[in-house]
Amino acid sequence: MRKKLLSAGIVAAVGAGVALTAVAQVRPDVQVKQRQAVMTLQGKYIGPLVGMMKGSVPYNNDVAVRNAAFLDALSQMPWDTFSEATKGESNTKALPAIWTNAAGFKKDQDQLRSAVGALNAAAKSGNEANVKSATGEVLKACNSCHDEFRAK
Amino acid sequence: MRKKLLSAGIVAAVGAGVALTAVAQVRPDVQVKQRQAVMTLQGKYIGPLVGMMKGSVPYNNDVAVRNAAFLDALSQMPWDTFSEATKGESNTKALPAIWTNAAGFKKDQDQLRSAVGALNAAAKSGNEANVKSATGEVLKACNSCHDEFRAK
Repeated sequence: MRKKLLSAGIVAAVGAGVALTAVAQVRPDVQVKQRQAVMTLQGKYIGPLVGMMKGSVPYNNDVAVRNAAFLDALSQMPWDTFSEATKGESNTKALPAIWTNAAGFKKDQDQLRSAVGALNAAAKSGNEANVKSATGEVLKACNSCHDEFRAK
Repeated sequence: MRKKLLSAGIVAAVGAGVALTAVAQVRPDVQVKQRQAVMTLQGKYIGPLVGMMKGSVPYNNDVAVRNAAFLDALSQMPWDTFSEATKGESNTKALPAIWTNAAGFKKDQDQLRSAVGALNAAAKSGNEANVKSATGEVLKACNSCHDEFRAK
């Protein structure tokens, strides 16, 4: 097999003793890049939902179902890359509170996961009003975490 | 609701007339950032599978199941952001062949989706040998597309 794809990101992810959620062996700058990638994509998929919630985009339940499902996957992805090894990285807005208030950070993660779960249920049921209110709850969860754990 | 989360990425994604796959109204540089984010995360989740395939990481079927599921979501995400509007962007290795050979590009997308589907099936069945060979097929699909459509 050709090895050309074994780029920095992949090689970095292939350390010794990969555990289900531990990525401590991945280079800290790569972890930062990975978690920022998740935020970028959460933005991509919450965006149209926010547009529909605000009425600037016509409601489309197919978009709601697809985007909610993608958000379900994405909202599981960033947390293991907020490892303590990334504390000293410069290209990040992550605040030290992530590690000094780990319980609070976990609570916000759970709040997002719960809100995304409700969004998925609403989208699958095809209830436009519920999708819109659930979108608002997802945004609240995003903001709650950013308020405490991300630099302005 | 607070509007602080309406960052550039989200605002850009909330254009008029969002269709299920059309993101032409999203700023071209944002589209590039979004598709590169997908590649970063595909690297994150194929990485441990490659390590297990090569034997540098102990086989863990829970990791295989989780990573395969994330790759199933991720491998659907980049394509709509390879819009023609991004042709003129500088911070990208995307080659013009993406648009002059759209059928070939689509064929490679389908190859990846098929390989990721097989990887998911193998992981769910818990068959280590099949997971390893399916991982090889996913890498082949990555390389096939990068060979033709990504600058060295």
